[in-house]
Amino acid sequence: MPQRYKLTIEYDGAFYCGWQRQSDIEQKSVEEVIEQAINQMASAKVKIFASGRTDAGVHASGQVAHFDLDKKFTPYQIIRGLNFYLRDEMIAVVDCELVDENFHARFGAKMRHYQYRLINRHGSIVLNKNRAWHVGKKLDLGSMKAAAKKLEGRHDFSSFRDSECQAQSPIRSIDKIEILQNGEEIIFNFSAKSFLHHMVRNIVGTLVYVGLNKFSAKAVELILQAKDRQKSGPNAPACGLYFLGVDY
Amino acid sequence: MPQRYKLTIEYDGAFYCGWQRQSDIEQKSVEEVIEQAINQMASAKVKIFASGRTDAGVHASGQVAHFDLDKKFTPYQIIRGLNFYLRDEMIAVVDCELVDENFHARFGAKMRHYQYRLINRHGSIVLNKNRAWHVGKKLDLGSMKAAAKKLEGRHDFSSFRDSECQAQSPIRSIDKIEILQNGEEIIFNFSAKSFLHHMVRNIVGTLVYVGLNKFSAKAVELILQAKDRQKSGPNAPACGLYFLGVDY
Repeated sequence: MPQRYKLTIEYDGAFYCGWQRQSDIEQKSVEEVIEQAINQMASAKVKIFASGRTDAGVHASGQVAHFDLDKKFTPYQIIRGLNFYLRDEMIAVVDCELVDENFHARFGAKMRHYQYRLINRHGSIVLNKNRAWHVGKKLDLGSMKAAAKKLEGRHDFSSFRDSECQAQSPIRSIDKIEILQNGEEIIFNFSAKSFLHHMVRNIVGTLVYVGLNKFSAKAVELILQAKDRQKSGPNAPACGLYFLGVDY
Repeated sequence: MPQRYKLTIEYDGAFYCGWQRQSDIEQKSVEEVIEQAINQMASAKVKIFASGRTDAGVHASGQVAHFDLDKKFTPYQIIRGLNFYLRDEMIAVVDCELVDENFHARFGAKMRHYQYRLINRHGSIVLNKNRAWHVGKKLDLGSMKAAAKKLEGRHDFSSFRDSECQAQSPIRSIDKIEILQNGEEIIFNFSAKSFLHHMVRNIVGTLVYVGLNKFSAKAVELILQAKDRQKSGPNAPACGLYFLGVDY
């Protein structure tokens, strides 16, 4: 019986074409780099399964993936070994657990947590370049919070779904949209069992339009009801989005 | 009468040889890059004065500097104009104020605030690479906090002073050393009217030795009394240090 390993992974999305291999893009995928590191460490070709794909530019501090290996390693050996082969990459293994064959990173996920970071100030940003969305005009946080409340719960999110989204149903249930302010930094925390393609970024783009008074907080209800991607705000830049973690 | 301008500046220290020009180093200094941007914007050769020099690798989110210019600009024009010429640099002007000739970024400083960021976890770090010190072994925060208390107040900080420090007196008064934990992140906040060269990093290195049980919390008192740099811990890496701001 092979051993199943669960990894918690951090990466800087700016350096990769996303989690998944893209045949038409020169940049490496996170997936292939980790599979190669496992191959180098264990001399075995494995396929890893992530809890969710992330797009190019999207970061992760708690992506979860699993893979099977005939060889037995301790979690400590896996963390040390993979990080050794990943040392020149912007990918790191944060944690490893031995799990049984019933564990599945994608199908076993009960809740996924994403964070979106935005810097709201006039002056350019440097320390948060490629790590947050820079919005120069002052945002009205009160209306953004009111609008966010209208998106919590179970809805048809067709208005916030990318045209290339492959999910069968546009119905999703958002357990939490929390908006926090820390000086010039605005943090959006999202929790849901699953999200549609570009859903978090489309919601953030729409909430920023509310904050800029391009949409009213009430308009967000109409956008939701319209079930039409043309009605919502822009897709917020990938660089502000972080895959924080998964509950199983 | 020329107009005096006060700038608040952010930079990623990893890209520069420090605030000050270094004739023996290829890398550019923050100082010269900003002076060049002012020159490009206002067609005037100016000298800028910072509230404090930072070493290579040390970041700033709130460095303060001033300069004089015969031409009159609004703060908005200065921010937009300088950030335009700084667009390919890892330096940004966050704020600008018109000040009178009595303002001096260095001599008028009443309190300086620094932060040191450390990531305490076994797995490698990626999102905080060059932005924090990675300490793999578990730190004992309780003893670190107890040791930090012994360094607050007015002392002879010879044990925490770089051999190249040019200050006339080794006596400094630390108003605050605060140690906060946020998950795997440990934050040190320092406030003092002024610091000796490498003082914050030498203190952090010593406190980390306490956290690793290489020094006891009590030993820090003896180290302070010894007035000998050989007795204290290592100089913590520059990449974890941030110049947060100055009170005038």
